[in-house]
Formats: sequence, structure tokens, C-alpha cells
Amino acid sequence: MRVSDEVAGALADGRPVVALESTIISHGLPQPRNLQVALELEGIVREAGSVPATIAVLDGVPHVGLDKTGLERIATEPGLRKLGFRDLAPAAALGLSGATTVSGTSFLAARAGIRVFATGGLGGVHRGWTAVQDESADLDMLSRTRITIVCAGVKSILDVPATLQRLETRQVTVVGYRTDHFPGFYLHSSGEPVDWRVETPAETAGIMRAQDALDGPETALIVANPVPVELQLDPSLHDRVLSEALRAADERGVTGQAITPFLLEYLVEGTGGASLEANLSAVRGNTRLAAEIAASWTART
Amino acid sequence: MRVSDEVAGALADGRPVVALESTIISHGLPQPRNLQVALELEGIVREAGSVPATIAVLDGVPHVGLDKTGLERIATEPGLRKLGFRDLAPAAALGLSGATTVSGTSFLAARAGIRVFATGGLGGVHRGWTAVQDESADLDMLSRTRITIVCAGVKSILDVPATLQRLETRQVTVVGYRTDHFPGFYLHSSGEPVDWRVETPAETAGIMRAQDALDGPETALIVANPVPVELQLDPSLHDRVLSEALRAADERGVTGQAITPFLLEYLVEGTGGASLEANLSAVRGNTRLAAEIAASWTART
Amino acid sequence: MRVSDEVAGALADGRPVVALESTIISHGLPQPRNLQVALELEGIVREAGSVPATIAVLDGVPHVGLDKTGLERIATEPGLRKLGFRDLAPAAALGLSGATTVSGTSFLAARAGIRVFATGGLGGVHRGWTAVQDESADLDMLSRTRITIVCAGVKSILDVPATLQRLETRQVTVVGYRTDHFPGFYLHSSGEPVDWRVETPAETAGIMRAQDALDGPETALIVANPVPVELQLDPSLHDRVLSEALRAADERGVTGQAITPFLLEYLVEGTGGASLEANLSAVRGNTRLAAEIAASWTART
Ligand SMILES: [Mn+2]
Ligand SMILES: [Mn+2]
Ligand SMILES: [Mn+2]
Repeated sequence: MRVSDEVAGALADGRPVVALESTIISHGLPQPRNLQVALELEGIVREAGSVPATIAVLDGVPHVGLDKTGLERIATEPGLRKLGFRDLAPAAALGLSGATTVSGTSFLAARAGIRVFATGGLGGVHRGWTAVQDESADLDMLSRTRITIVCAGVKSILDVPATLQRLETRQVTVVGYRTDHFPGFYLHSSGEPVDWRVETPAETAGIMRAQDALDGPETALIVANPVPVELQLDPSLHDRVLSEALRAADERGVTGQAITPFLLEYLVEGTGGASLEANLSAVRGNTRLAAEIAASWTART
Repeated sequence: MRVSDEVAGALADGRPVVALESTIISHGLPQPRNLQVALELEGIVREAGSVPATIAVLDGVPHVGLDKTGLERIATEPGLRKLGFRDLAPAAALGLSGATTVSGTSFLAARAGIRVFATGGLGGVHRGWTAVQDESADLDMLSRTRITIVCAGVKSILDVPATLQRLETRQVTVVGYRTDHFPGFYLHSSGEPVDWRVETPAETAGIMRAQDALDGPETALIVANPVPVELQLDPSLHDRVLSEALRAADERGVTGQAITPFLLEYLVEGTGGASLEANLSAVRGNTRLAAEIAASWTART
Repeated sequence: MRVSDEVAGALADGRPVVALESTIISHGLPQPRNLQVALELEGIVREAGSVPATIAVLDGVPHVGLDKTGLERIATEPGLRKLGFRDLAPAAALGLSGATTVSGTSFLAARAGIRVFATGGLGGVHRGWTAVQDESADLDMLSRTRITIVCAGVKSILDVPATLQRLETRQVTVVGYRTDHFPGFYLHSSGEPVDWRVETPAETAGIMRAQDALDGPETALIVANPVPVELQLDPSLHDRVLSEALRAADERGVTGQAITPFLLEYLVEGTGGASLEANLSAVRGNTRLAAEIAASWTART
């Protein structure tokens, strides 16, 4: 594992660091916007006084903190893989490059000593799980990693209530940030309640300290941070296009690993790009909040 | 975490201690009977020569061993929360009080160095899991906590065979105490077989020592201790009222977190209070057996 | 736990060792062929320059490395139990003997310091899991044990895609050995793709070293090694007899624990013994490959 000098220095000094995942760069956005967004997110972290650590695997080596060249490779190399935790060892042994998912990024961040991680939406339990097994490895990793992940919920193409149940089953703490409802990724609210609510970065850091003081199984803290109402996707548009997308997937026989990209793509097109903008608004907000939480976390004596 | 002087002293001296959960006090019984039962259960532990450690969170602080004032608070404070493991950190950070579930109590007991825990029934997999995800966090915690939990099975409103399957999947050892069948909570038997049977507290303590000697993943030992046949709820009454309750929940659209209290309440009313008495008989028997196992466990040199 | 002198010596010297499970001897094959096969598999390991460590529990004591008498006991004692990890403590306390499943064998092998384990097929998610919970404890143990297990997939009577999903969910790395498809146990291919492919024992050992270097959760590496096409069961025969077997189980009301032996037995009879021969071909190939991987693994400096 290679930790960049900047990130290693910040960690050594106890200065705030925020981990960022790389699949949004490689698989989530079109070129050349993906590189612009990657740089913009790093800028948001810096503005808030933290050090960004974008995480990816280059030529088999996990990198925590990418330089400009590294970001460009993730943004432009064709055929990059998505690497979850279980893929890191084969990628290392075979010398391959790839972007890291929430499970891969969470592990590498925690392993490097980074406590706060910003992303868009978590993976979860797929719709249709009653007939086809499909639960993201993100959930299992959050059940065994001491990290604080700031997200806007889980992708709304997933089964949100089922995902929340699995997080409860697997001991992962979920708090709403200034909300009593779990966010709906593109939407301010999924309609599902959350058990806990926090109002400030300091309160969030207090929970992180309480996790450490309890000294229990190394579970994560999910800070569910909704996209502001004024920046969300129009809910009726969202519901209409998502229904169409699910029907289209069914009619065309799209299944398995192909479903997620199919639905996301359908949403982008069916909303005239508005789903992408809502997604980016959510990621920006999460990145800012993560930097504030990291600052509050490291400010402890 | 605050361990009471009495409990800390017993643990330091290697004397037997039995953990007791607090949701039965706060949520399982009406006032003022709940406080009487809490004191009665502690008395049963003492009579058997062990020290009781009722566990709850007061003003954010996990307490292992409650004094009279603490028990009274759990028995009488309105709006107390039920706290599983994942709720302990938020409760600590926000300074809230609450009763601890099996997952919360198991963790805190083990963390304090207590090996034996008595309760009524475990959480499990909800009926209807084929359509709606709902598996108690108790099971996951028992898959990663080295504790011996004495119970009368899982609440019969749950899916017992599915729960037993999940315990097998997650490596949790289950033994029947003087029975070849998993108990049915209110009933002596659920009709489901168990793979292992023990006859004495000493034999149970032998399994606990074997767990430690194997030095494997920190899984629990479930000692399934049936309510005696003469104290069980009448099985035909149980089956009839439970069917009615499930139908009523369905007709009235009761779902999610509301189902468990609805069904339990329905059972109490539909059996004229007999389900509550069977429940208490089970808890008393589990508490006595837990104290005997704790004594046998600490008697090792 | 008793580690045989030969195995202990090899481990101390850093010479290659291959763990072998014992349920194939006790439950998988008829007498006296089972003992012949047990000895044949140990011979295959030795020919490849490794030391075999057949694992079982005798009179409560886990044995890692059985002598001739131990193998004979496993091959001939009536009523031997199948012991998963969760059964090891009760068996030890009660002084019973039994053969160890993949979960029990994986744990004991890793605990003894053995890194490579050869078997036929893993347990997995049962067909019909949408209605009846049944997921083998093998999967959970592979999610928390640092072992390399060489197998020919999962028994084809199980739900292969669902099992692969659970392995992904639980972070278990799966690589195909000289194949892009997950093997079908009796068949060269199950038709399901695998994400990673390795070509040599050295490449496999490289992934094992990468797992250790990452220093993450102690997950397993599954090396999925297909039975050669020329030794597989005829696919059309397999599909026809398996369909018949599933229909027969349904018609005769065979459920629960009884299903696996029923289906396996039906396959043996319905294929005129050819399924057993394909199974043995797979096990022999896995054993040989495991020995080669173990040799490559220990050859590191
Ligand atoms: Mn998936
Ligand atoms: Mn639940
Ligand atoms: Mn099973």
C-alpha cells in the first residue's frame, strides 16, 4: 500500500483527512467531466481544511492519496475494473489497476488510519432480492470496519428498506444528519425513518469517540446526509422514470451485474441529466460534511 | 462503562456473576410488576450464590450492575429506548438512557468480563422474512461474542426454523438443556430438534471451556432451557391465539417494528394473561440455571 | 488439539502441508472404498512433495493429521457425526468422535497453521432458499478464516448463483484455476462466470501473499478447479437425473437436512455410479493442485 506523502504527513500530524472513492471517477461520470469532478471534490476537502485521499489501485498497488497523474489514469484508462475488498489481493498479485468501491475504499482508508470517508450512495440489497440473492459487499465491510462514511443513502434503484434492515442486523450505526429520515440518494428523503439524528460535526465526532471508548466490534458509522430539497431530483420525475427503468429492465431481460448500470443510465437519460446533477450535489455536500467531521474528530485532544 | 462495585468485586475474585437484560423491565412488563420482577430475578441469582448484573444505559453511561435507583429508573421512566449494540455509541454521545436488548446486553456483559447471561427469548428471523427483510441483530452479535446465554428459545411470534438455520449459518452453538428439542418460549417445545443436549451445569461449563481451548472466532453458546411442561402455556390455546394475532396484524396492516409489540400484546390479552405467566416462568428458570452454570464455570481451577 | 508429529514437523520446518477433510470418508463414500480413497488422497499429496493432514475429531480431541488407525476409525465407525465449527466444543466436552465438514476443517487447519486445504465441493445456499432458510456454515467460516481452499465448486444440488452471490457479499475471494467459469462440481463448468483467473500454483501463492500483505479481515481464497472435461459427468445425463431427483424429493416430501443425502444418493444411482467417479476425479485433481500450491507457498523466502 502506498500512502501519498501529503496524506501520510497529515495523518502523522493528526490533521484531518477525508477518503474519497474512485469508482465515481472511473464508472460514474462521463469524460472529461469525471476528472473535473475528482479535482473539484478534492478542492472541497481542502477548502474545509482537510487533506483529500482519493483511493484507487494502480498497477496492483493500492494508493491512498492520488496525484494528478493518478487521477488522470483513473479518469481515462479504458477497461478499469471495480475493485471491492475481495478483489484487492488478486489485483495486487496480477498487477492490475482499478477503481475501488465502498468496500475496497473503506478497508484501505481504515487500514491507512483514515477515519472519515465521503461517497455518494452505498451499495445495498437489490430490488428483487426475494427471488435473486444480491447484497452488496459494502454492507458486510461496514459491519467490520471502524470508519465513518458520509453518504446520501443508498442508490434508489436498490431496495432501501431491506438495506436498512441488513444494516441493523449487522450492527452498523446509522444517524441522520439534521434529518429524521434516511435520504433517498437523488431525493432528500427515502421516506424511511432513522433511529438517531445529529445536528453538528461535533456531535458526530462524539459518537465516533463513543464507538472507540466502547471498544467493541469494529463497525462503521453511517452519516446519512440528504441532498438539500432545493437541489434534489424532482420526486415525481424520479418515481416515474425509475418505474419505467425497472419495467424496461424486466422487458429486456437485463439481470445480474448489468442491472445497476442499466438503471443508472436510464435515469440519467430519462431525467435529461437531472439525476446526474442531483447525484453530484449530494456528493459535494457529503464531501464538505465529511471534511467538517474529520476536522472535529482530529480537534479532540 | 460503569461496573458496580459488587459486580466488579465478584469478577475480581472469580466469583460467579450473571448478566440480566433490561428490556423485559422497561418494555416487557406492566408497572409496577416490572420492578418486582427485576428484583425477584436478582434474588434468584443471589439465592443460587451468584451476583446479578442487570445491564442498562443511564444518561449515556452503560451500567453493568444497577442499584435500586437504577432499576427504578428503568422500570418507571417514560419513553426509554431499546438499545442494541449499534445504539450504544449514539446513546453515549447524546447522553440518553435506555434498556439494552440481547445484542446490547451480550456485548456489555462480555466486555465487562461476564460470561453467563440469562434472558427470556432471543430475537430472530421474523415470520414473513421471505417478503420483508427482518433478522434481529441479536443473531449477528451472538456470532461474534463469547457469551453463554440461557434462554427459552426465541419468541414464538418469530420464524423458529429460520432462526435456527441462521444460528447454524453464523456458527452459534446451540445445546438443549435436558431436552432434544428447541424450546418454544411459552411452550416446552417448538417441535424443532437440537443437535446437542446437556444434562448438567457442569457439562455446560465443560463446553464453555472447550470453546476457550479451541481459541476460535468468539461465538456464543446458547443454552436452550425449556419452561417446564406444567408451567407452559396450553399449546392449543397458544396456537389458536397466535393464529388470530397473525391474522389480525395482517388485516389491520400492522407491519415493521410495530409487529412484535402488537403480537405480544395480543397474546397476553387473548390468553387472559397466561402467556405473560409462562414467559415469567421461563425467565425465572433461565435465571436459576444461568446462576448454576456461572457457579460451575467459576468453580474451575 | 492434537497435531501429528509428521504434520507438526513439516509446519515447524516450513515444508508444505495440505489439509484434507474427513466427511468424504465417513459420509461420502461406501465402505471399503472410503478408506482406499482416504489413503489414495494422502498418497497424492505425498507424491507432490507435501505432507497430508487429514482432520477429524476422535474421542473429543481434534486431530490434525490422522494415522492409519485414525483413518480406519473414520472409515468404519458407525454413527459418526458431521462436525462443523460450532460442533467442535460440544464434541470436545462430551468426548465424541466425528468427521469434520469444510467449516470445521477450515478452522482446525488454520488454527494449526496450515494454509492450504483440498476438498470436493463447498457447502452453499440450498435451492429453495427463497422459501426455506438454508445457507451452509462453510460460507461464514470462509468469510473469517485465512485459508486457501481448492475445490470443484459447490455441490450442484445447491443453488450455485446464490452461493456465488453470498461469497461476494461476505468478501470471499474466488479465482478460477485455468478457467473463466465457476466449475459445476460433477461438471467442468456451472456456466457462471468468475471474476479472476489464475494459471499456475505460483500465481495462486502470489494472491495468498497479497492477502497477507493487505493485512485485512481474515477471509479465505477459493481456488475453483474444474474437473477436466474428459472426466466430467455427461452434462445432459447430469441435468436429466438432477431434475428427476429434485422432482422425486418434492413428491416424497423430503425436506431439511434429509435433502442433501437424498439427492446425492439419487444422483449416484441415476447415473449408474458415474456421479461418484466424477466426484472422485474432482477430489483427486483438487488434492494434487492443493499440494502444488502449498509447495509454491512454502517456497517463498
Ligand atoms: Mn451485487
Ligand atoms: Mn428487526
Ligand atoms: Mn444447512
